[in-house]
Amino acid sequence: MQHSPDFQLQCPIPLSDYPRVTLAHGGGGKLTHQLIAEMFAPMFDNEFLRARHDGAVLPMDGERIAFTTDSHVIQPLFFPGGDIGSLAVYGTVNDLAMCGARPLYLSLSLIIEEGLPMQTLWKVVQSIKTACERAGVKIVAGDTKVIERQNGDELFINTSGVGVIEHNLDIRPGAIHIGDRIIINGDLGLHGIAVLAQRQGLEFETTIDSDCAPLNGLVGELLRADISIHCMRDLTRGGLAGALVEIAGTAKKHISIDETKITVREDVQGACEILGFDPLFVANEGRFVLFLPPDETEKALAVMHKHPLGAGAAVIGLVDEGAPGVAARNDFGGSRVVEMFSGEQLPRIC
Amino acid sequence: MQHSPDFQLQCPIPLSDYPRVTLAHGGGGKLTHQLIAEMFAPMFDNEFLRARHDGAVLPMDGERIAFTTDSHVIQPLFFPGGDIGSLAVYGTVNDLAMCGARPLYLSLSLIIEEGLPMQTLWKVVQSIKTACERAGVKIVAGDTKVIERQNGDELFINTSGVGVIEHNLDIRPGAIHIGDRIIINGDLGLHGIAVLAQRQGLEFETTIDSDCAPLNGLVGELLRADISIHCMRDLTRGGLAGALVEIAGTAKKHISIDETKITVREDVQGACEILGFDPLFVANEGRFVLFLPPDETEKALAVMHKHPLGAGAAVIGLVDEGAPGVAARNDFGGSRVVEMFSGEQLPRIC
Repeated sequence: MQHSPDFQLQCPIPLSDYPRVTLAHGGGGKLTHQLIAEMFAPMFDNEFLRARHDGAVLPMDGERIAFTTDSHVIQPLFFPGGDIGSLAVYGTVNDLAMCGARPLYLSLSLIIEEGLPMQTLWKVVQSIKTACERAGVKIVAGDTKVIERQNGDELFINTSGVGVIEHNLDIRPGAIHIGDRIIINGDLGLHGIAVLAQRQGLEFETTIDSDCAPLNGLVGELLRADISIHCMRDLTRGGLAGALVEIAGTAKKHISIDETKITVREDVQGACEILGFDPLFVANEGRFVLFLPPDETEKALAVMHKHPLGAGAAVIGLVDEGAPGVAARNDFGGSRVVEMFSGEQLPRIC
Repeated sequence: MQHSPDFQLQCPIPLSDYPRVTLAHGGGGKLTHQLIAEMFAPMFDNEFLRARHDGAVLPMDGERIAFTTDSHVIQPLFFPGGDIGSLAVYGTVNDLAMCGARPLYLSLSLIIEEGLPMQTLWKVVQSIKTACERAGVKIVAGDTKVIERQNGDELFINTSGVGVIEHNLDIRPGAIHIGDRIIINGDLGLHGIAVLAQRQGLEFETTIDSDCAPLNGLVGELLRADISIHCMRDLTRGGLAGALVEIAGTAKKHISIDETKITVREDVQGACEILGFDPLFVANEGRFVLFLPPDETEKALAVMHKHPLGAGAAVIGLVDEGAPGVAARNDFGGSRVVEMFSGEQLPRIC
């Protein structure tokens, strides 16, 4: 093989600690971060990856396009408020929107386990179509693989996406400034708890529906209103905490949030308490944070409150002086340091 | 769920024939074609998908870009001449090249089975890097998922890719003309037989290495030489036969090939005979066909013969009058109709 010389390199993940890949390496917490920071990022290093964004912003003949990818391995395939098909579309649409791009085109790659009921595939395909129509994107390329029974788990879906950037803003984690306010567009924890409840057969008095939704419409309104967005990030694996810790780390800035400004529905809070989860770490699929200059917060909130997906928008914190990291002030006037979780909180959540 | 009305639609794949997805639905033969033609294509119909190309050619602010996706589920992960990492890079690079694009950017999405040795992941990552350097592309976006043991099979890799089209040619299956000559860039069957031999522990007197290679360099030479390319297609799942049958079907043209012009190495031919395969249907990962006007064949062959991946280039057939389909003239002066194979010839080959 032509690449044998490279095989002499030492694996950057200490094999004595992790001789094998664990579930936590995919959970969005510390080990995922380690794998990316120590193995993938140095190996594939380039100016686009260095932005540590939800997608790559690429020059293309004087224009800028955004390009992103996401594989979806969620179990169960169908859950209250969505399914693997809508999730796969919105997940990639949202990553493009977080880059400040207008999502245009998606690819769709299916890895199907032999034996999947054709009717299940058909339901997912219809859901993908409906989600594409809602988000205003087209499937333009595809691929289908089938693997033997018990070598997969029903269905995995990769969607990659391309969008166009139609403004001159520089939107990325490294572009946040001290003094920036942080806005969130709604309450936390719905997606994670909806999926977990479905998986475990838990029943609540009220149905908890996933917040899974396309954010490009709302982001488009913000861009049209000329809001000087510095950074956006959707709050998927790792939740709000994971997103903020990553942004603080990339930007080398300190972030303070006020937990009393964050909304968590009572039933979601109750489920989190029973299950031992912290809502700050639970995955969402239609929630994002927005970093912007303080004098633009009122205007941004006004735009967001007019949109169904921004009705619950609120300022939850700011970028302030301090060592890189995230602090959360709680109900009792105290403050805690927010770190990425270790281990696996919720496997197969997206 | 917001999409309930659509769920009333009838599944287009007759459930009495195929109540469940079979391996053959992913094999690149008749059932794959049926799934695409009857379920995916009508559901996601748009002008880009209708081209039935290896990737989508998309307008982007006056320029044209190409966009494609491929998930790789090959077993074993390492085989003579390559591994899942180099395959994933070259597979997507080649799909972009077949669109006449210069491949620039790849995304890399890993679905890892819990328990995969970290050292194996590290070897694959190094192979990806080496392959990217050889092909001149950058990994610009990524995603990592880990699934529980026995819900996956070591490692699946999706690569999607973006390239730029720097000429005014209209390269796609529908653009072939009657009279076009068909050139192939080398011998057939190496990849499929190399992988199968590794999987089954078969030993031959000589090592059969996969032909897995990036074709963008060779295609770039053809484009720089101003060859009026009408269509290109790499000969992966379904082999030469699958590619030609698909192109003939999309273009509604008749294709005649001369089997005596096609090179199959003696050891590959022998392996095919023992295993019961027809080399025309065996997957390749560094071979492609090129459709072009007859008066440009000499020039194209001259360009190809100068390139290591085109040293074995030869004219193997032409587009002629007749009902849509493919005919192959054999050694004995006879002719056979070439159709897509039914069932599964070689699962998990890419």
